[in-house]
Amino acid sequence: MAANDAPPVDLLALTARLVDVRSESHAEQELTDLLEDELARHAPWLALDRVGCNLVARTTLGRDQRLVVAGHTDTVPINGNLPSRQEGDVLWGCGTSDMKSGLAVMLALASALPDPAVDVTWVFYEAEEVDARFNGLKRLFDERPDLLEGDVALLGEPTDGVIEAGCQGTMRVRIVLRGARAHTARPWMGRNAIHRVGGLLGDLDRYQERRPVIDGCEYREAVQAVRIEGGVAGNVVPDEVVLLVNHRFAPDRTPAQAEAHLRELCAPWVEDGDVVEVADVADGAAPSLDHPLLAALVARNELTVRAKLGWTDVARFAAHGIPAANFGPGDATLAHTADERVGREPIERTYLALADLLRTGAPTS
Amino acid sequence: MAANDAPPVDLLALTARLVDVRSESHAEQELTDLLEDELARHAPWLALDRVGCNLVARTTLGRDQRLVVAGHTDTVPINGNLPSRQEGDVLWGCGTSDMKSGLAVMLALASALPDPAVDVTWVFYEAEEVDARFNGLKRLFDERPDLLEGDVALLGEPTDGVIEAGCQGTMRVRIVLRGARAHTARPWMGRNAIHRVGGLLGDLDRYQERRPVIDGCEYREAVQAVRIEGGVAGNVVPDEVVLLVNHRFAPDRTPAQAEAHLRELCAPWVEDGDVVEVADVADGAAPSLDHPLLAALVARNELTVRAKLGWTDVARFAAHGIPAANFGPGDATLAHTADERVGREPIERTYLALADLLRTGAPTS
Repeated sequence: MAANDAPPVDLLALTARLVDVRSESHAEQELTDLLEDELARHAPWLALDRVGCNLVARTTLGRDQRLVVAGHTDTVPINGNLPSRQEGDVLWGCGTSDMKSGLAVMLALASALPDPAVDVTWVFYEAEEVDARFNGLKRLFDERPDLLEGDVALLGEPTDGVIEAGCQGTMRVRIVLRGARAHTARPWMGRNAIHRVGGLLGDLDRYQERRPVIDGCEYREAVQAVRIEGGVAGNVVPDEVVLLVNHRFAPDRTPAQAEAHLRELCAPWVEDGDVVEVADVADGAAPSLDHPLLAALVARNELTVRAKLGWTDVARFAAHGIPAANFGPGDATLAHTADERVGREPIERTYLALADLLRTGAPTS
Repeated sequence: MAANDAPPVDLLALTARLVDVRSESHAEQELTDLLEDELARHAPWLALDRVGCNLVARTTLGRDQRLVVAGHTDTVPINGNLPSRQEGDVLWGCGTSDMKSGLAVMLALASALPDPAVDVTWVFYEAEEVDARFNGLKRLFDERPDLLEGDVALLGEPTDGVIEAGCQGTMRVRIVLRGARAHTARPWMGRNAIHRVGGLLGDLDRYQERRPVIDGCEYREAVQAVRIEGGVAGNVVPDEVVLLVNHRFAPDRTPAQAEAHLRELCAPWVEDGDVVEVADVADGAAPSLDHPLLAALVARNELTVRAKLGWTDVARFAAHGIPAANFGPGDATLAHTADERVGREPIERTYLALADLLRTGAPTS
């Protein structure tokens, strides 16, 4: 590898190259092909395995410890923000922050380090931004768990170059309120299901979220309507409205506790015949900062540590017994916005911290 | 004409015959052909004009007054309710109520009265049950307004044999509330547009409608959400919600006044950047019960009079300066249902009242 204080490649330019290969969820093939081709050419020491649009590249050095570094290749739908646009040391565009700058760090490090102090498994996976049943990391854990074996994992989700510990859980609940059809000229013959949902939406608008502190990290919960649909015809009182609500819950609550909380929230507005059902759920993950590799990464680079509010696949590693944390160059607050962007500095800082960890490993205690 | 107290033909059997000629909107040709053939054979004194699937049959007696009697030939899609089924004096089937029993009255009267006291124009028209741009009466007013000239009009829409005066107007307003996208794990970075609509829906749910009394008829207004849509993705704070609201307004308000009322209703919930726009509008029609022919029809038959709440083509006549009312044997509350049916009594009552009006005309004042 090159000098300790500068990355060997222009990481912002590499990010731009990855961003400009459009890869919305379910359309990651072109980008995955590019990554596979790059690694095959520039890191021939890596064992490559591909499962669908999931690519796993591993060193096989027989080290005592194995670090897994994983990042998703997909983005949310573009929002008038492709191709990318660079001004000075800032790059704008869909996926700059979430998380192609992280992929750029992974690709550059994988190609630069033939002989790290710990074995490394680089995981590039598909479909993280959509329903969990499509998640590439889930598929790998289901079909090829051997490829994901390791002692600790880092996920390149946007954290602005700090360690974000654990993650909140996420649950989507489908709420169906019923009514009765009638002609809109005689609405008292029926009951308007769309009108019925007003009270619940008002409660969601006024919702006061919990902010529990766990291992020194403050989490912050959320309850957000993410989809609403209803209507029969322009002259018919609608007999059904469907509301999808996304709940983010801190890792001190189980999915069952989170569901109970949501049901309590909906209860004043729900009647017999209505539906409140969990559409999908993913557990959170407690912080795992006591693991030696994570502790070394934090201590040697004096990294800031804070709670991860979004759900990330660290929870999937945690569920398989692998302590994990989020560590990536992007800015999560800009992810999924039209103004998504990333700066050169956090990308290089992330690169250098990871390079240092891979070169030195954890202190033997 | 036959005795005053009984129709000369079995009107329920005639209704069944018309019902069993299926004529959903845009497929009225077979029924229109049948009506044209019947009138040509049994009422040779009528001048027949046909425009597409619209048939106009007129006496040309040079009377002082001309009554227009109009009815649409189309039905909504059948709903497992054809062929018709008769039990005793009740006939079930698609179109029995809306409005082939009315067509049967028209056909029988047209064939029975070669020498009425007023000239009569019988109008059988297509495509009333679908988008207004297909409406046969609209087409006739556009292409052959001469065929529709008259002093007063009756529309055979189902009123259960009473006079339904005028009609309410209808307006659809599209409301778009904006927000700002953000990740649902950090909703305070954005603004949830779906949550914003809760307040407006709550107001619609609590809406107290006006019930103005006009010429002794109580109208009853309505404001009903008929469609709602919003949502970007399961993990994104939505930045837009679209609500379609249908307003039915009494004929003492103009469309401009109705729009102003709706805008006032929305105002507390609408901000700069949101949209409130009229999607479509159809004016109502005032009751015209002071017209001598309508007054005579009501008085001589001691007919009940009430307000028409739904919009009907009487508004189209009113807009062309022809006072009009709804008067038909069907039951509007059964229209468009699988259980649609009609009884013999209101058909015969409607027939006899119209026969009396045509035989006697209005008193000369």
